Parts: sequence; structure tokens; C-alpha cells
Amino acid sequence: MPGNKAVVYEGPGKVEVHETGYPEFELKDGPGVNPANVGRKLPHAAILKTVATNICGSDQHMVRGRTTAPPGLVLGHEITGEVVETGRDVEFVKTGDLVSVPFNISCGRCRNCKERNTHICENVNPDRPGSAYGYVDMGGWTGGQADYALVPYADWNLLTFPDKDQAMEKILDLAMLTDIFPTGFHGCVSAGVGPGSTVYIAGAGPVGLAAAASAFLLGAAVVIVGDLNKERLAQARSFGCETVDVSRGEPRDQIEELLGVPEVDCAVDAVGFEARGHGRESGEEHPATVLNTLMDVTRAGGALGIPGLYVTGDPGAHDDAAKHGSLSIRIGLGWAKAHSFVTGQCPVMRYNRQLMTAILHDRVQIAKAVNATPIPLDEAPRGYHEFDEGAARKYVLDPHGLIPKAA
Amino acid sequence: MPGNKAVVYEGPGKVEVHETGYPEFELKDGPGVNPANVGRKLPHAAILKTVATNICGSDQHMVRGRTTAPPGLVLGHEITGEVVETGRDVEFVKTGDLVSVPFNISCGRCRNCKERNTHICENVNPDRPGSAYGYVDMGGWTGGQADYALVPYADWNLLTFPDKDQAMEKILDLAMLTDIFPTGFHGCVSAGVGPGSTVYIAGAGPVGLAAAASAFLLGAAVVIVGDLNKERLAQARSFGCETVDVSRGEPRDQIEELLGVPEVDCAVDAVGFEARGHGRESGEEHPATVLNTLMDVTRAGGALGIPGLYVTGDPGAHDDAAKHGSLSIRIGLGWAKAHSFVTGQCPVMRYNRQLMTAILHDRVQIAKAVNATPIPLDEAPRGYHEFDEGAARKYVLDPHGLIPKAA
Amino acid sequence: MPGNKAVVYEGPGKVEVHETGYPEFELKDGPGVNPANVGRKLPHAAILKTVATNICGSDQHMVRGRTTAPPGLVLGHEITGEVVETGRDVEFVKTGDLVSVPFNISCGRCRNCKERNTHICENVNPDRPGSAYGYVDMGGWTGGQADYALVPYADWNLLTFPDKDQAMEKILDLAMLTDIFPTGFHGCVSAGVGPGSTVYIAGAGPVGLAAAASAFLLGAAVVIVGDLNKERLAQARSFGCETVDVSRGEPRDQIEELLGVPEVDCAVDAVGFEARGHGRESGEEHPATVLNTLMDVTRAGGALGIPGLYVTGDPGAHDDAAKHGSLSIRIGLGWAKAHSFVTGQCPVMRYNRQLMTAILHDRVQIAKAVNATPIPLDEAPRGYHEFDEGAARKYVLDPHGLIPKAA
Amino acid sequence: MPGNKAVVYEGPGKVEVHETGYPEFELKDGPGVNPANVGRKLPHAAILKTVATNICGSDQHMVRGRTTAPPGLVLGHEITGEVVETGRDVEFVKTGDLVSVPFNISCGRCRNCKERNTHICENVNPDRPGSAYGYVDMGGWTGGQADYALVPYADWNLLTFPDKDQAMEKILDLAMLTDIFPTGFHGCVSAGVGPGSTVYIAGAGPVGLAAAASAFLLGAAVVIVGDLNKERLAQARSFGCETVDVSRGEPRDQIEELLGVPEVDCAVDAVGFEARGHGRESGEEHPATVLNTLMDVTRAGGALGIPGLYVTGDPGAHDDAAKHGSLSIRIGLGWAKAHSFVTGQCPVMRYNRQLMTAILHDRVQIAKAVNATPIPLDEAPRGYHEFDEGAARKYVLDPHGLIPKAA
Repeated sequence: MPGNKAVVYEGPGKVEVHETGYPEFELKDGPGVNPANVGRKLPHAAILKTVATNICGSDQHMVRGRTTAPPGLVLGHEITGEVVETGRDVEFVKTGDLVSVPFNISCGRCRNCKERNTHICENVNPDRPGSAYGYVDMGGWTGGQADYALVPYADWNLLTFPDKDQAMEKILDLAMLTDIFPTGFHGCVSAGVGPGSTVYIAGAGPVGLAAAASAFLLGAAVVIVGDLNKERLAQARSFGCETVDVSRGEPRDQIEELLGVPEVDCAVDAVGFEARGHGRESGEEHPATVLNTLMDVTRAGGALGIPGLYVTGDPGAHDDAAKHGSLSIRIGLGWAKAHSFVTGQCPVMRYNRQLMTAILHDRVQIAKAVNATPIPLDEAPRGYHEFDEGAARKYVLDPHGLIPKAA
Repeated sequence: MPGNKAVVYEGPGKVEVHETGYPEFELKDGPGVNPANVGRKLPHAAILKTVATNICGSDQHMVRGRTTAPPGLVLGHEITGEVVETGRDVEFVKTGDLVSVPFNISCGRCRNCKERNTHICENVNPDRPGSAYGYVDMGGWTGGQADYALVPYADWNLLTFPDKDQAMEKILDLAMLTDIFPTGFHGCVSAGVGPGSTVYIAGAGPVGLAAAASAFLLGAAVVIVGDLNKERLAQARSFGCETVDVSRGEPRDQIEELLGVPEVDCAVDAVGFEARGHGRESGEEHPATVLNTLMDVTRAGGALGIPGLYVTGDPGAHDDAAKHGSLSIRIGLGWAKAHSFVTGQCPVMRYNRQLMTAILHDRVQIAKAVNATPIPLDEAPRGYHEFDEGAARKYVLDPHGLIPKAA
Repeated sequence: MPGNKAVVYEGPGKVEVHETGYPEFELKDGPGVNPANVGRKLPHAAILKTVATNICGSDQHMVRGRTTAPPGLVLGHEITGEVVETGRDVEFVKTGDLVSVPFNISCGRCRNCKERNTHICENVNPDRPGSAYGYVDMGGWTGGQADYALVPYADWNLLTFPDKDQAMEKILDLAMLTDIFPTGFHGCVSAGVGPGSTVYIAGAGPVGLAAAASAFLLGAAVVIVGDLNKERLAQARSFGCETVDVSRGEPRDQIEELLGVPEVDCAVDAVGFEARGHGRESGEEHPATVLNTLMDVTRAGGALGIPGLYVTGDPGAHDDAAKHGSLSIRIGLGWAKAHSFVTGQCPVMRYNRQLMTAILHDRVQIAKAVNATPIPLDEAPRGYHEFDEGAARKYVLDPHGLIPKAA
Repeated sequence: MPGNKAVVYEGPGKVEVHETGYPEFELKDGPGVNPANVGRKLPHAAILKTVATNICGSDQHMVRGRTTAPPGLVLGHEITGEVVETGRDVEFVKTGDLVSVPFNISCGRCRNCKERNTHICENVNPDRPGSAYGYVDMGGWTGGQADYALVPYADWNLLTFPDKDQAMEKILDLAMLTDIFPTGFHGCVSAGVGPGSTVYIAGAGPVGLAAAASAFLLGAAVVIVGDLNKERLAQARSFGCETVDVSRGEPRDQIEELLGVPEVDCAVDAVGFEARGHGRESGEEHPATVLNTLMDVTRAGGALGIPGLYVTGDPGAHDDAAKHGSLSIRIGLGWAKAHSFVTGQCPVMRYNRQLMTAILHDRVQIAKAVNATPIPLDEAPRGYHEFDEGAARKYVLDPHGLIPKAA
């Protein structure tokens, strides 16, 4: 049995790569494991040799100490790999399959899974509906930034790439199917993006860029991305987006310069609660800024897709209400404009198959859009650090050196 | 030419019935008329002899002085009547037709109207998309609590009842098509109510009761209505609703008693910004209480239909943020539960035809559900007063004594 | 181990009750079993003690000799029962659970199942997507008109009733969840039935009556059912339907008498390919009659829900084209009216949970609507015979005498 | 008042350009005008100076003598032009506006128009819902292959381009908004095309090519176009389509070569009733060939968008059933695969605004895809002839020489 190195959260600002155990077909106790999950048998699981496992912006909330994540937590929920072992109950997934893992863990047997709401599966997280690998308060499933990872309910959760060789040629693109590509796409779908839409996307981090690429795939006429970070805005422009520099002020005016009107059809919040203010307030955290701005710039009757994370508890927030997840929202404005708001995790399994097909037929260059950058697993701490500093990159850990250089 | 008596807002708490002018095919200047609308020609309008014209909860916001409505404003946006005259450009509506008027005024020619978004018509209100009769900041269209009322773009706006005699037999039901029945229905549709749904409706006023009747029409399994007002809760029980008395505390526990679980599939906010607190806080205004409670009691993946009004400006609010329409909303909770939120006016024309058919074929008793109560036009001040005091009634003004006693 | 009596097809017109083996967790060879399915291990299955198992109109196609079903085939795909044993891989379903079995067998692991298209599961029938218990050319899964039945992929397929005692009180209603209630409901949903719709349903057999009950549950204003069989039409009238006697001629005129117009909003074909002609042609089989009539009576822009079965091969058909499933269809008329057509099996799992909730809360009396009639398993041959003769009944086999008399 | 030259149908195979009258604000009697429409006043109309007016495949049905179109009928329903005069009741459209005219004529006041079903408007064609300019049995509205054309209900029907100069630069693309681009797009939307879809489009004429361009705009992964005409197939390949030569046999095998499976997700019929057989039968007309083939090559659960025309009467058909619009359709196969079928004219107004935006922002090159080819109005007879011979071109008549050479 091989060893297993993994990326471990060791406290605010501290990420290390440790030897941890090789996966077993049982959920063992450990940091952050829900007691009700301890000892759970997993004969329906598969063990993957990790081919690509990405660092996600939502991992940073934990690493920055904005959550109650315990030290020792193995990180990582964006896993792509090759099946090396399957549990006794796995019938259709086979050893050797190259597969994508949705970051939401789901059972495929509860009401919500049957209704395609795999983001709120009722059977995997004893605390509440919905789960993910390597994440605080999500039941305690081991993270996948590791040499090997275990995926429960493998027949249900795994998406198998139809041709392994062809897939390896596009592995950096396909690695985005675990989270950010479907997440950005879901934001756009929720916002009603379609052929001819004008779209404003708040945030030029990986999810925002994935949303922008998704908007184009959906036929959007104009895709405008807003951020404070000039490098990330340049990345957005590299594949045809227009950009708004929110350090210059509210996006309204810049949108009017671009479109002739100060409003778009559809808006996506790819920032969430750690938002900073616009214009002169861009040095401070203003957690409702993005939501309030989106109501300002979205035309009456439009919808806001909100994949950006808002949390129920934020001990590091600046005011008491925000500590409990309450923000001051201009709901009166939204109501007057008859806006709709769609929040929550993306149910990855609704989208990953069709997006895979789009990638395999060269209809979208998602790795290029988000500037996917493979680095060895051992360099994960550097990846976390640079990403936190605002690098316009999506870091992809490559534990076994399998990602082709050209990709 | 006949005279025209109308219900006029004369200042906070003061409603009077005055002689006003008979309608003309031009929008004349007057209290609250937007300058850009003054002198607008209306050859596309029809003049109605009002058969029924209801008092609405949203009128009360003005009468209570919670808006900037000017004295002299003729009230009323829930108009049902007989066409007595048509403008030169009216082609399909005929004198003698008995018709229902959607409270939203719309042109039938702009992008939004063409997309069925008549609640945000771009051509009738110079201030912003969307308009209504007799309402502050809505362009200045004369209210319809009067003997006679004018309806612009008559071919587009009017819904003609197919058989006049049959319609007069159900006129109290049909009078609800102008606003509250479609509004309650839209709340339910927005919340995803369908066969087998469990539904919580906040508010047992006329819109809440109309939402409850709509939920049954949509096939809901259990309809639970919450309010502080015991008479209104009794009214809800009269047609099969379960009820929650929010003066006893948060609805969660009472819902669990009813359903065995503390959550419903779908939720409707039929209260809006003038909400009072729950339990011990029920004496005070807590404008975000309803929204926050709905997130608490709606299951993960559910949707909130929000026909209850939230305003962009509320001079009488208790705090500065609320004065500008910003409320402290537990968005973190909603996000964790992947909720959707649908706000805004109801686009009445999307629903009024099908609801008319349901009424005419006895599939719904909406007048009974909301306790529709006809009173003479002259008694409008009493109606406003009693309604404001919490009477479990929907007051229907009957200017010409045409509503049958039996109805 | 108990014995197992079951209803067996023994040739055209011949149905018998035989002792067959108690279910095992493996698909054994037998009449009609696809070779590729022989020996398939079923550790994911549950064994049910059958509480109710209904005779279906589609069973009659086989019994009348209109298919290639082999003698020895155990019949029955409408199974409700109590779990008495579960395979090694079953995690959530428990012994003692009272459950409903969707007639479509599905794996819960393929693309189609993940997309809620359980009627075309790719992993259970080697011949083509989609399967059912006890049916010709469906892979060879043993029928459930028996004391005991086996259900594969039990965690996925089974719907557990939340309270066993409460469920037993409504067991005749709940027994309709396996097939005809969702099938009729799907026909209505496919046809766009909603609040206020006018609906024409061709066929007053159990599926037609279930469609009619569904239409009311969906809020339809008027539900019109057409058939040649006067007893079945009377049954339709018993719960509020209007009726059309197609032996009197094309439905168009009778619909006009009822509605004032000769067209409805929505239409459902609950007859399928064994249709008889209308008016003077009602003695002969005219397999496209229903489809062509529905185009005639459905208004422009309407949709046709077609749960009625059309087959790819019909050796007993009157002409060569029909023998291969080709019928002479007035597509020109449908095109001119911009009709939509939705065909195929109902994906039961999309609807059975919500319909269960509607039953448990007394929102629909489906057993009464279809005149559900329990009889002992031994009397199945009589049930088949009477049903074929046109009895206005839905026969429910009750192998263990568990169905309460009152029900 | 200027004169008005127009393209006139003068009998089978005979198209001429004649002087006809300048439009008036009244529908005058003439060849093919429905008596109930004669004398209809049109104060809501606008008169356009035609900038582009295209020859359509559906015009060819008339010109080939396959309909009852009377000699003297002015042809043309694909009109783009500049407003030169407006009727008394036109409020929002202004003289000088450059506009696109949906080929469906609609009133903007009936139930169907209010529901966005402008393809089946109830007020413009006394014979049945739905109308078009210059077409047999459509009420008698004058065709628009002319110097000047009249558009009724101008405020409702016309789509104004936001910037005239910018629009003139892309006028050949924008000229496709009147019919074939929305029609092809509607076919794709009806077939469920979205990101990642594999699509088969039957027919590489202008509508088929427009459907292919639409499929790409909607994000399709693979677009396969089938035809007998090698020049048209080459045109399809010019913008990235795969192709199937149906003269080589049924498409199934060629699709399998392309995709690895013999089926696609979605299918579009852009041929209609004048279809020819496949393989060795390609010399003969087989009106149901396309529909039957699409069922063969579409995966279970898929949908067929059917913008290709099927008629209620076809005097030139080869058999009696087809003469009345009845075709031999393999409905058994479609049912077994649970297919959906969406037929009828495209409701252009649902799509033309968003497609205009996509064109103006360079997201689609529709003129290039269909090989739009401007010719003078006088050369219309040549255009009709070459198009009928199978030229891979979309002929755009340019009455005033306004179309820029570069375009």
C-alpha cells in the first residue's frame, strides 16, 4: 500500500504538506469529523490516484482563519483522478477510469439527490444538507489535495471521461469540472444568461473568470467583469471580456460607457462575503457591497446568480450582525426592480457532463480563461500564498506529475 | 356628461370622497402627476363605469403617511367595470364589455411588455419601470376608486369577461383579478408551489389569504398561514388553512407541530416592510422579520415568493438604513440553504385570464377566502379605517350599487 | 423461506396463478429474460411482501396476444409492499418500511437517471433504455403480481411512506403511485395543464381517470373525458368530469356544447395504439384516431401529453405499416396549429413523492376516481377478464389480505 | 408619392417584378385577400422603405405550384427597412427608424400575443390563428418583396435597431432576423440544444444553416448537418459543422463515425414535407423521411424541433393521405424513446431582440453562415430560380441599392 501525502490546514495562515494515511473504506475519526459520521462504512466508495486537485477560493476562507476549521484538517475538494480501487458495492465505475469528482458529496438516494439537488444531499452531513470534501462543518470527509483520495457513492458521484488519452490532453481544462466551471456556469444560468445577454460579473478570481467563460458559452453578447485587482482584470480581457475597475468607483458609470446604458440584463456575484468596498472604500471590507451593487446595475426584471459564498457565522466580521451572517441589503431597491436572487452551492452534477462535452469538443478554453497553473503537491503552501496575494492564477496541484507540460 | 365622485387622499390618516372630473382622453396635470406625463394623449384608452374597486393594503402605506404621496391624490388601483367609451384607437374592446383592469399599467409595446413583464413597463412611468393607478411615484395615473375610471392602452390592458350575466353573478370573485388574486398566485408560483407542496404564508391579510387560496388551487398539500391577528387567522382556517400565531413566537415550532418537521417546501411573504416582530417583539416594527423567518422555515433548496412590498424610501422607518430601503437580512442562512428569492410586483396579465377561468368554473372561491365585503363608495373612509384596524375583510367599493346582494 | 404464488401469462387470453420461487438476490434465467441479464447479482435489492399489486391496461396488450411475450412470464409492475429483506448494499431502506415501487426499473447511476429520466435508464435493459417488471422486452425482471417481489437498486427506487399506520389507511390510494397516478399526472404536465386550463382526456380507463384526477389537482377549470364505454364515462362523471361519448361522433361538437368553443387548451392521450374509431367506425381499430382527434380539438399553441402506449412492433395490426409502428398521422394539422407532442413512459420518480403527499393530506381521492377494487391474488384471472371486458374498475390484487375493508 | 415595384407570383414557376401601388393605411381587396379583411383600416401601421427583403424557402412552395396561391400575389415576408411614414395611432416607432419586421403578423392585443405566441395571433387572419406577409391563406397581407411595404400594429411588431449607422454595417446579418435566424434558433431551442449538446440538423438550406449557427450560439458541442446537396454541405462545413451526405444512406452510420455513437442529443427538422428519400430513394419525395430519420438518430429522452413546414393540404402529393397532410410516421419508435416533438411557425418576437444583440456584438456571423447574397429587386426571378436549383445561397433583394458592397 502506497503512502499518502496531503495538504493540511495547521492554523490561520498555515498550510503544510504531511504524510497522512492511505484511504480506507470507512470514515475514521479525525479533525473536524462529525461524531455521527465516525465509523461509517463506505463499501460504495472508490479510491482515486489524484491527477489534479485544485486550490479553491473557498479554501482560503479557512486558511485565513475566518472559520472554525480545526488544525489538522486535510484540505481540497476539487479532485480529478484515476480509479485505483473500488469498494464491494461499486458496479459501474471501473479501476482505470479517469474521472471527475463533484465537490459536493452526495448519496444519490435521498429526496434532494433524486431531484438533482446534490448540493443539499441529506445523507452525508449530519449537521445540515450539503457537504464537501476537506471542509469545515461539512461532516468530516477527508480532503483531496493528496496523492490519493476516497470518493463515496462512486457510481453516483463520479463522471467518467469517455476516452482516457483524449482526456489527458485536456486535463487542465477538465480539472475545472469539479467546481469552478460548473459553479460559474450555475451563476450564469441562475442569472438567466442566454444568447444576446449583457452580463456583469462581480469578481475576477477563478470563479468569476469561469462565470465569464460560461457566459460566452451560453451566448452572451457582452461580458463585463469587475474587480479591484488589475492583473485579474487583464486576465479577464485576455479572452474577450470587458472590465470594470471598481477601485475607480461604482460600476454603474463604467457600464454605461461600455453599453450606452448603465444596466445589464444579468448579474453574477462571484465574490461573496469577504467583499471590499468600491471606490474610496476599497480598502475596507463591506460584505454586502457586491449584492447592493448588483441590484444597482441589473435592469428591472433581471436576476442575480449568487455563487459567491455568504456564511451563517463569521467570527472575524466587523459588526455583530455580520458575525451571524446578517448583512444590510438594499432589498427595497431589488423589490422595486422585481429582481430574483438565486443563492447557494452549485449542484455540480447538473452541469458537469455537458461542460465536459463542450471541453472535449473545443468549444470552451476554461483552463486558459482562469489561467490554470499546475504546481507540484509539495508546493501547495506557495500556491495558497500567491493565490491569497491576488495572483491571477488558478493553482492546480499535480501530485504525481501526470499533467502534460503542454497543457 | 356624468359627474365623478372619487376617493381622495388628503393627508396622513385622512381619506375623503370628492367630486372630481369625468375622465378625459388626456393625462392632465394634478397632484402627483409626473411633469413628463402631463398632457399625454390617450386615444388608446377606454373609460369604465366602475362596478367594483377595492381597497388594497398597499393603499394603506400612503394613507398611514409612510410615503410622499401628496394630498389630493385620487386612490385606487383595483378596478373592474363596464366600458362606456373608447378612444379612437381602440379596436377590439367594445362599449358594453365587462372588464377587469390589471393594477399594473402597461403599454403593450415596450421590450418588457413583449416579454410578459407588464409590471415593469418602460413607457408609462417616467421615473422608472412599472406603474399603477392612483399611486405615489407611479407617473400620476388617476386612481380608480371612483364612479368612472380611465384605462390607457385598453386593447392591451383589459381582460374581457366572456359572458356578462355569468360574470355579474361572480363579480365579487372576479373583482379580485385586478390585484390580490394574481398577486397571491404569483407569490406561490414564485415560491415553486405545486401539487403536494407544503407552504407557509406570512400574513393573513387579503394578499396572504389570496396566496393561500392560490396554493390550494395549485395543488398544495398543506397551507399554513401565519399572522398576529386572530380574526384573520380564523378567516384562514375557514377555508382549510392551518395557522400559526406568530404572537406566540417564531413559526418554526408551530410548523413542526403541524407537519412533523419544522420546515416547509415553499414560502410566501405577504407582509412586506411594515412587519412586526414575532413573540415578545410583536408590538414593534421589525421590517426584515418576515424575510428572516421565511429562511428559517423553508427547507434547503426551497424558494421564497415575495409579493409583500419593500420600498426604496421609508421616511417613517426606525433606523437610517431602513429609511433608504436597506434591511438587515440573514443572507448567510439563505445561502447555506440554497434559497431563491423572487421579489417585485406581480405581472397581473400573466395570470388573470387563467384565474378568471378557474373562477367562472367554480374551481376557487376567492371572494369567500378573503371575505370580500362590498360597501358603497361613500363609505370608503370607513372601509379604510376598519381595514387599518385589522378587520378580516377585503373591502370592495361599489359606486353604482351594481354588486348583487347575494354575491 | 415462504413460497411465492404469482400471476403468470400462459398464452393469449390465458392468465394463471402458479407457485413460483421466492425472490433471490440474483436475476435467474427464465421466460423472457435477456441473456445479458442472466446471472446478474442484485446485492442492492430489497424483497417486499406485496401489499397491493395492480392489474394494468398495458398488461392486457400482452394477455391479448398483441406482443411477443412468452408463456411463463410472471406479470405485474404496479407493486406496493413491505420490505422484508434487504441486500448487503442497501443502506437507507429498512426492513419493515412500507414502500411504493415505481414501475420503471432504474439504476440511479447512469446519465439518464441522474437527469431524472428514470423511464429510460441505460443500465437495466440490455435491449434499449427503459425497463419495467414483468414485461416483454424489458430485460426480464420478474413481475410483481405475487406474494413477494424483488426490487433492485432499492435505495434509489423505493419511496418509503413516512408513517406506516397512516399509510395503511390510504393504501388503495397509495397503491396508485406505482404507475397510473404519476402516468396520468405526467400526461397532464406534458400537456401543460395548470390552473384554469380546459382539458380533454381521451380514454376513461384507469390511466384516463387518473389523468382527470390529476388535472383537477393541477387546478384545471374543466376536465372532459372521452370514451366509447358508458360505464367508464359514468365513473368519470362521478368526480366532476364532463364527458364525451365518442360513439356519437368526433368530440369536437360535444366539446363545443360544453365550452362554447370546439377546442381545449390541453389534451391527453390515455388510449394508445389499440384505439377504436369514433362514431360509426367505433367497431374497428383505428390506431391513429386518438392522436388525430387530439390535434383537431386542441387549440393552436397547445400541447398533447401522450402517455398512451404506441409500440414499435404490433404483429396483430391491420396493415403493414402499423405492424412496424408507423401510423398515418395528420402532422400537417398539428404543424399548422403549432402543437407540441410529448410521448413515452412516465418517469414515475419525478412525481411520486409529491403525489404521495397530496394523498396523505386528502387533497386527491385517486382510488375513488379510478374505482380501485381489491381482489385476492387467486382471483387475478377474473380481474384480467373483467377489466378486458370494460369494467370501470382498477383491479388491485391483495395477496396477503392486508388491504383494509373500509379502504 | 413614389411608385412601388414588387415581386409577384404569376403561376407555377413564374415570378415577375411589377409596378404595384404604394402602400395605404387600409387593407384593399386583391388576389388572395380574405373577404373579412377587405377594407380593414390600419391607422396602427407603418410604411417602410425596404432595405432588404429576402427570398424564403417557404415562398418556393407557392412558386413551385404546391399550394393554392393565386396569380397576382405579391410575395415576401422577410422585410427589413426604414420607417418613412406612420399611421395616426403609432406612438413609439418614429420616421427614420431602421427596423426589422417579424414575418409573423400579429396584433399585440389577443390572448396569444399576450402569451408571446405571436405565430398564432387570433386577430389578423380570419381563417385561422397565425399570419404572414405575402402568403397564401394568411389573410391577404401584401408581401414585402417590394420597394415599400406596410407593417400593421407597428409599435408592437417592429424591432428598432438602436444605432442606424452601426446597423447598416451589419445589415445583411440583421436582415436574417425577420425569419430564418429566429426560425433556426427556435428549432434548436425546441430541441433542447444547450451547452455541450450534440445536434443533428436535417437540411442545409438557409433555415438549416441558420439552425446550425444557432446551435453554436447556444453552446452546442457538435453540430451535424445532413443534406443531399453537396454545395450546401460544403457551406455548412465552412463554419465548423460536421456533415452527413444523406444520398449515401441513412444518417445513423455517418453520425456514429463522427461521434462514436449513432445518436445525438437533439434534432432539428429544417426540411419539412417536400423531403426526398435517403440513399437509393433520394430521387423520390418521401414526405415523412425526415421525421422518421430524426427519431432514429435522436437518443431516448431527446426532443425534435420541427420548424420545417408540414401542410394541411398538398394537392401535388403522391398519395391521398399526404394530399390532406397525413403522413406515415413511426410514432411507435418515438414513443419507445420518449421523444418530444415541437412543431409550428417560429414566434419571431420571442427571439429577435436577443439575436439582434448577439449580431451587433459580433457573437454570430449569420449572413456568412447562410451565404447571404444581395441582388437587385429586378433580379428576383433569377434569385428564385437559382435558389430552387439548390444554390447554397440566401438571396437578399436590395430594392434601393442600400446594402453596402462590403457586407
